[in-house]
Amino acid sequence: MRMEDMILVSVDDHVCEPPDMSDNHVPAKWKDRAPTFVTKDDGSNLWVFEGAQIPNVGLNAVAGRPPEEYGMEPTALSQLRPGCYDVDARIEDMNANGVLGSLCFPTVPGFVGELFGRKAVEGETELAITMLRAYNDWHIDEWCGRHPGRFIPLAIPPMWDPEEMGREVKRVAAKGCHAITFADNPGALGYPSLHDPHWDPFWKACSEEGTIVCIHIGSGTRLNMQDMGAPIEIMIAGTPITLFNCATELVFSEALQKFSDLKIALSEGGIGWIPYFLERIDYVHHHHRRWTLHDFPNGKKPSDVFREHIVTCFIDDAAGVRNRDLIGIENITWECDYPHSDATWPRSPEVLWESLEDVPDEDIHKITWQNTARHFSYDPFKHIPKEQCTVGALRAQAKDVDLSPRVGGGGKKPSDYEKGYCTIGDVVKQMAFALSTPFDSSQGGGD
Amino acid sequence: MRMEDMILVSVDDHVCEPPDMSDNHVPAKWKDRAPTFVTKDDGSNLWVFEGAQIPNVGLNAVAGRPPEEYGMEPTALSQLRPGCYDVDARIEDMNANGVLGSLCFPTVPGFVGELFGRKAVEGETELAITMLRAYNDWHIDEWCGRHPGRFIPLAIPPMWDPEEMGREVKRVAAKGCHAITFADNPGALGYPSLHDPHWDPFWKACSEEGTIVCIHIGSGTRLNMQDMGAPIEIMIAGTPITLFNCATELVFSEALQKFSDLKIALSEGGIGWIPYFLERIDYVHHHHRRWTLHDFPNGKKPSDVFREHIVTCFIDDAAGVRNRDLIGIENITWECDYPHSDATWPRSPEVLWESLEDVPDEDIHKITWQNTARHFSYDPFKHIPKEQCTVGALRAQAKDVDLSPRVGGGGKKPSDYEKGYCTIGDVVKQMAFALSTPFDSSQGGGD
Repeated sequence: MRMEDMILVSVDDHVCEPPDMSDNHVPAKWKDRAPTFVTKDDGSNLWVFEGAQIPNVGLNAVAGRPPEEYGMEPTALSQLRPGCYDVDARIEDMNANGVLGSLCFPTVPGFVGELFGRKAVEGETELAITMLRAYNDWHIDEWCGRHPGRFIPLAIPPMWDPEEMGREVKRVAAKGCHAITFADNPGALGYPSLHDPHWDPFWKACSEEGTIVCIHIGSGTRLNMQDMGAPIEIMIAGTPITLFNCATELVFSEALQKFSDLKIALSEGGIGWIPYFLERIDYVHHHHRRWTLHDFPNGKKPSDVFREHIVTCFIDDAAGVRNRDLIGIENITWECDYPHSDATWPRSPEVLWESLEDVPDEDIHKITWQNTARHFSYDPFKHIPKEQCTVGALRAQAKDVDLSPRVGGGGKKPSDYEKGYCTIGDVVKQMAFALSTPFDSSQGGGD
Repeated sequence: MRMEDMILVSVDDHVCEPPDMSDNHVPAKWKDRAPTFVTKDDGSNLWVFEGAQIPNVGLNAVAGRPPEEYGMEPTALSQLRPGCYDVDARIEDMNANGVLGSLCFPTVPGFVGELFGRKAVEGETELAITMLRAYNDWHIDEWCGRHPGRFIPLAIPPMWDPEEMGREVKRVAAKGCHAITFADNPGALGYPSLHDPHWDPFWKACSEEGTIVCIHIGSGTRLNMQDMGAPIEIMIAGTPITLFNCATELVFSEALQKFSDLKIALSEGGIGWIPYFLERIDYVHHHHRRWTLHDFPNGKKPSDVFREHIVTCFIDDAAGVRNRDLIGIENITWECDYPHSDATWPRSPEVLWESLEDVPDEDIHKITWQNTARHFSYDPFKHIPKEQCTVGALRAQAKDVDLSPRVGGGGKKPSDYEKGYCTIGDVVKQMAFALSTPFDSSQGGGD
């Protein structure tokens, strides 16, 4: 097998919603309350919804920008590579990267639709569910629907009502969407914990519909931003491993015992720590179960429960690939993370291939697309002949895609930072600045 | 090499301080304010210091108890195996387990002497430093001094004053102690963060004296106890990996650049996650350094800094041993964790040997004692002929040690727990109960 023969499907990318997101799916009655894309006087863009401004139009959407300009600061849409928000351009960027399929997480509504969830908490449940359904319809019909076979649709759940979540799972499943987001630590968002039967109607619907639950890093557990003097690398390096705790909670939860068909994907969690994790949970179970009295049916070990239910993924993770036998080859998938700063775009095949040096073809296929097709109910070959799905075939279609860095301004000098390098405090300041100049619709630009 | 030929030195065990701890090292003037061991009317024991009661006489000190009785509840000294608090009995238990040497963390004063630190914050710095020095003297002279060659002394630092910390490092180094504790997240204890030059006098003294800084799990970062409905296994499983964050902070800190000889041990952190960790920090550095402007001298990678400064250890960690080449064989050490519930006592050699199946003798020696001897300035063979230091030789001296479980009462039935198994909330309740019946010196037993 050559690098060009791989078929790559990414289970974790991101969409920066385009300005027309609210145009076609919000019912007329609710149109004037839908999220609106606006341009501020300084040229930056944001979304406005019910008085709240969401400045993260392109938060961390840095694909195609010079690495010197990466950062967490909000940006204008014009600074972004069109592939971030324009689905036709996205397809070109996927082709240029040899990527066949992609599952895209939301940006504006938050990983689990927090933007709409907040309105539900305020009592506006009809507004909340209307906007949430419109978002899911936009995502499924427009973002994913325009290029059949190229996207795995992913819905966001109405977190405020588990029965409503169950209904939304069934509604979108009928439209062909078999993946939905959930929070790694719902307690941190003010909801009951993973160990509360509160969520059973949601788990039940996912289990019945074969819908995989996608838990992305940062969807509940807060990022490590407490130490303002720490280099920003502390926060970035430690974020994927925050899913360690969620993985333990899932394995020891009653939910996975009650709903034996339930599948959960740990999105952007990495895989290199999983061998340690599985050993650790088995050790803890073995050493402590006689006093904790927690046990699993049929003599199962926690690692068995993990392998039955949990799907992992990685961007670039040589140690994880080396130890794939300890993880479970059936449950490893791959991701690109376009357009975020950890992404390997547009060199994903080259970066991945380095980790696959001694891996047999059979395992490569499982990791790069077969596991994903099975766990995420994804069948691209219904739409596209398999021989057109390889890295080589897709790249051949993308010869005209301009991959040169898109210089957008930004970037700092050592003297811009108090310590000479960027700290967590510096990023917090950047974000606070973006929020300190609220959009005033009577003066601002609008769109 | 046979299992019996191994030489085992543990870099993480625990001492439950004996009732006479304060007898010989607290100056006469301060005697009546020293920590005092008392017995409550219900027969349980605690320590009393300046109005505070410390009920964790045997917190989690469960070695030799039936697994059904493990738990986090405080206990009477009579329920503990004497090896927990009696150093002669400890030596017998070490012999029975084939363990030559041991580094013991404190229990009553807290991992970094918080008990005394609180008095310093209240302005009583003379009391605080007096008690802290008395503790270190007791630990070095009595606990470690009685059996030369069998212990690696470990001091606690006067956290409230970095200059004082530097002086204590030098004072105990003159007594032969070249290890001292520190907190994995000093910010969580109310002190400046790891990234503050505040700590430089401490790092400098450690660097000059060749004193290794031992950072134990739970020494700053709080245990994961927020979800009261979660099985207690969630907390137990996730505790070692809390050092992931500390390890990142250290690697990206200015301290390790300023003090090139500084060595830090991550105590009870495990090793199976280190290959992933090293890949992750290198990836983050490579992907982000051009905008964060954080760099290392001489083109070093973060993983280089880690291997130059950080010493790891494990209890039972087959994935880590398999991937020792990715970690760095020079920096892996072993621990027993006696008498805590994760300990492998009294079967440590058997448990460890299983992980060492395909490991060459040279690497086994590095892991089980050579690295520890070098990093912790430990030279047992000055006191004990090497041939008497092996698992086989030590066990031969321990033929009369009674290893049968010491039934102490305790243990629960499913009906004792609301969910039928122990949750984090159940453990929090046990602890709160122990604290809710304060010791009244006018009525209680005393000792």
